[in-house]
Amino acid sequence: MSAIAFQDRYPDDLSQCYGCGRLNAHGLQLKSYWDGEETQAVFQPQPWHTAVPGFVYGGLIASLIDCHGTATAAAAACRAQDRELGSEPPMRFVTAALHVDYLHPTPLGGPLTLRGRVEEIKSRKVVVSVTVSANDNICARGRVVAVKLPPTMLPGAD
Amino acid sequence: MSAIAFQDRYPDDLSQCYGCGRLNAHGLQLKSYWDGEETQAVFQPQPWHTAVPGFVYGGLIASLIDCHGTATAAAAACRAQDRELGSEPPMRFVTAALHVDYLHPTPLGGPLTLRGRVEEIKSRKVVVSVTVSANDNICARGRVVAVKLPPTMLPGAD
Repeated sequence: MSAIAFQDRYPDDLSQCYGCGRLNAHGLQLKSYWDGEETQAVFQPQPWHTAVPGFVYGGLIASLIDCHGTATAAAAACRAQDRELGSEPPMRFVTAALHVDYLHPTPLGGPLTLRGRVEEIKSRKVVVSVTVSANDNICARGRVVAVKLPPTMLPGAD
Repeated sequence: MSAIAFQDRYPDDLSQCYGCGRLNAHGLQLKSYWDGEETQAVFQPQPWHTAVPGFVYGGLIASLIDCHGTATAAAAACRAQDRELGSEPPMRFVTAALHVDYLHPTPLGGPLTLRGRVEEIKSRKVVVSVTVSANDNICARGRVVAVKLPPTMLPGAD
């Protein structure tokens, strides 16, 4: 896997995300990487990331899928254009739609592994499927429809 | 609206949820209430609940929809059986599937209002649609397929 996470290549003013921004001290700081044609992220839930005792909170799972999906979209869009993720102008995607199927209760304790796969890629839209596994068992499947960050959401836009 | 939130009627051992458990000191502590035939919750995001600066993190929106949806399911299931939400045995739902359409970027600053509506109700499954509004504008629409908490997830189960 590449040494620098996708999210760590985002410019400073787009690195505030609660789920994955390296500059959000309160956030989850998810880190995603290429692993061949797929992408991977590993996240260690905290004890308070619970739903009912012993199981991971579904909203956390949705959040991880969201950030891994948009990061995969940005990385895939750059790869398709044969450019570096950190190059200008910034390549950053946001979520237009998110779907999660919770297949099994996700045990709380060890790390979760997210695997992303690009299902569709266009210039302004990338669809990514994501699995979430605990102990090598897939507990949730997600689908992220990611769209390029609209100019109105760029820092400094009116 | 009724004076006691749905989530505040869950028994202690089912009140740990990161999104809405009254006993999770680290959590969001969402509170949902009846408002006629619909349900409502109001949540004030923190400054760090951001995606890109100025806008609310999509994973937070998904989390709020998740918890408001399952709480609405529990309340509706009790209402359908003409029983109190806090009565025994506990009526608690978990999420089988979650879908969110992010219609507009959600401004970060003021409170968010969630409105829930029961779309389908069966003994073990309730489907709830949820809107998320900021400044009276609907920014996201969600759909939660909630199922009764499986006995294997109950605290104390093997």
